[in-house]
Amino acid sequence: MIQDIDKELKESKSDALIVIGDSTYGNPSLAYVVGATATRGGIYIKGVGSKPLLIVSEIDVGSASKGIVKDIKPYTTFGYLELANELGESKARMEVCVRALRELKVKGRLCIAGRVEAGTALNWAEWLKNKGFTVALDEDLVDRVRTTKDRVEIEKVKNVGRKTEKVVDATVKMLLQCNTDNEGKLRSENGKPLTVRDVKAFIRMKIAQENLIASEDTIFAPGPEGADPHNVGVEETIIQTNTPIVYDIFPQEVGGYCFDTTRTIVIGKAPKEVKKAYDDVLDSQLLAIDTIKAGVAAKDVMRKACEFLESRGHKSPIYYTAKNLPMTDGLIHGLGHGVGLTIGEPPYLRLASREILAEGSLTTVEPGVYYPGKFGVRVEDLVVVGKSKAEDLSTLPKELEM
Amino acid sequence: MIQDIDKELKESKSDALIVIGDSTYGNPSLAYVVGATATRGGIYIKGVGSKPLLIVSEIDVGSASKGIVKDIKPYTTFGYLELANELGESKARMEVCVRALRELKVKGRLCIAGRVEAGTALNWAEWLKNKGFTVALDEDLVDRVRTTKDRVEIEKVKNVGRKTEKVVDATVKMLLQCNTDNEGKLRSENGKPLTVRDVKAFIRMKIAQENLIASEDTIFAPGPEGADPHNVGVEETIIQTNTPIVYDIFPQEVGGYCFDTTRTIVIGKAPKEVKKAYDDVLDSQLLAIDTIKAGVAAKDVMRKACEFLESRGHKSPIYYTAKNLPMTDGLIHGLGHGVGLTIGEPPYLRLASREILAEGSLTTVEPGVYYPGKFGVRVEDLVVVGKSKAEDLSTLPKELEM
Repeated sequence: MIQDIDKELKESKSDALIVIGDSTYGNPSLAYVVGATATRGGIYIKGVGSKPLLIVSEIDVGSASKGIVKDIKPYTTFGYLELANELGESKARMEVCVRALRELKVKGRLCIAGRVEAGTALNWAEWLKNKGFTVALDEDLVDRVRTTKDRVEIEKVKNVGRKTEKVVDATVKMLLQCNTDNEGKLRSENGKPLTVRDVKAFIRMKIAQENLIASEDTIFAPGPEGADPHNVGVEETIIQTNTPIVYDIFPQEVGGYCFDTTRTIVIGKAPKEVKKAYDDVLDSQLLAIDTIKAGVAAKDVMRKACEFLESRGHKSPIYYTAKNLPMTDGLIHGLGHGVGLTIGEPPYLRLASREILAEGSLTTVEPGVYYPGKFGVRVEDLVVVGKSKAEDLSTLPKELEM
Repeated sequence: MIQDIDKELKESKSDALIVIGDSTYGNPSLAYVVGATATRGGIYIKGVGSKPLLIVSEIDVGSASKGIVKDIKPYTTFGYLELANELGESKARMEVCVRALRELKVKGRLCIAGRVEAGTALNWAEWLKNKGFTVALDEDLVDRVRTTKDRVEIEKVKNVGRKTEKVVDATVKMLLQCNTDNEGKLRSENGKPLTVRDVKAFIRMKIAQENLIASEDTIFAPGPEGADPHNVGVEETIIQTNTPIVYDIFPQEVGGYCFDTTRTIVIGKAPKEVKKAYDDVLDSQLLAIDTIKAGVAAKDVMRKACEFLESRGHKSPIYYTAKNLPMTDGLIHGLGHGVGLTIGEPPYLRLASREILAEGSLTTVEPGVYYPGKFGVRVEDLVVVGKSKAEDLSTLPKELEM
């Protein structure tokens, strides 16, 4: 949570946090500490125990002031225009930061954050070092702060969740309203076979209707396509009955919070092996969710799901790691990841994770098993880590057959 | 262009380029050198004069191999799993990079790129230095390479442009089909006053129909709202006749190229001062576009537009810079910016720019004048810098009154 910055700075033995970037868009660290939009980015400076200062373009002062930083100044206050003439724009911003640090009487060790080009980060560090500061080697201070969410943030995620689930619900209804020909192919309103392309177009319209965006392609992968967890679905594929479809959707509010959910659905009857795999996956998910609470190691949740799936005859990363083999089938990815201003952030539920789950963290729980050439099944909920148990933010039914 | 990497590496006195990141999404540098999707990111390594190597998660090998790198290996090839147990996942990736560099016999000075958390970049640099490499302080090598586009890239931008202009066209048609009440308010189909919210919903649906995404909010700012270049339009505002509306739209293909265009439109008749301001802005734009060709300094294009607008009685950054005053009215932003895998990249047409325009660069040309409390007008085309002139990719009419 945002009030943890001081605590994290102290633990990192740093005297101030600097967050940089050329926009709040695509820069979750900067978006988070600003709490509003600054389309041309800025410099956020917060000394331990002090209130933050935000420096932005004149043009962004208005929009940035809708956020959580009270003290906002334009670059020009620090002589930016002359600096830009003398040093170029990039170095001028670094020098503006130095001037602001001196005005704030910040000395010592700085922690630099913000999503920027690697070369930009290296140049900032060098500039600040040359001006007498020390730069901390703290990899992800703002990510750590962002990991635990306050109630306002969780409400925002829930709100995106409600909208996301409306999209899924409408998609399923649309599929169920389609006619089926005697080959088991679904037919769209105009009588043509319904393809993944058609379904994706429908999903896009529904996402737009809910005022959400999907920066990455939604996964709608029928049959063997679902056996590759990253196959988003082949546009030309015709939707058929009695075939499992992996439907993984993870939209976002513009410049805001995300949701992430997956359902595997079959229009008609699922083949026996699909049904069995699905039940195994669903049971492993419920078990994993039951395991989650504050204080539990992220890797232990993953381990639990793996062991359960192995007991049901599926391979898992435990098997592959032990044998040092490439992962081919069964569970071949991590069990979950955090969700917030991004759709992939800590905590990560993986065997190699070192994190301990903290109250207020959000994580997906998304076991799946994959059988190349045949099918894949996955089911994914988003949960909040609570003191004594997890709160499941996903409300969609988990029936396989429709 | 991608083939310029070697040239830029030599100029940067570096022996290899490393591009890192946790996804190709939101990471234009990595997306560019991979030329395809790797949702879990990877490590791209290219020695001067050598073919590149790309290291990705097993799960991403398939999608990444649709790109331009032929040699793709999973992390596990370099003993990632044991490294992750020993060092944690983040440092394990750094060490995988070291092992790959040794295998490729790369020595000496490395240039690190990719959009990552600043702390990640600093830790990578430190890790590589500790392993005997030197790290270049090159701020934006891949950005420089990306600045000039090849014909394939320009075709992709044009394609997004055609789709974007269809959205604008449909929006204007929709506005013109609305009834107007005796107060000059537009009425939607259901008889209710048409608001910015309604228009934005319409735009979103059209953008989705064209299979584009808008990661930032489209600007549709009527009357005084248009006087703040970053005001995206107030949802509740009712659309009225005889009022200028700034309509700035900049969508993107999923994980791909962007377009950016602005038109100022009036349903009905424009007030005289709006008409005059618009004509001045349009004339300054045509003049600026005429100035653009390879070899011209970016700042000179901006200067030309500024001088012209000042000659027509508007203030510009030349005035404000000379007087060291905050920018309040007239032209109060830069004239243009590059467009490609992002909607804001070099070249920047600003007074402080140091760039010389290169053949194949794309830049917006978007003069505007703003009168707080009253109105704003802006017109924006996207052009390709040619050897002897600019090629305008925007084809929408530039009539103010509809």
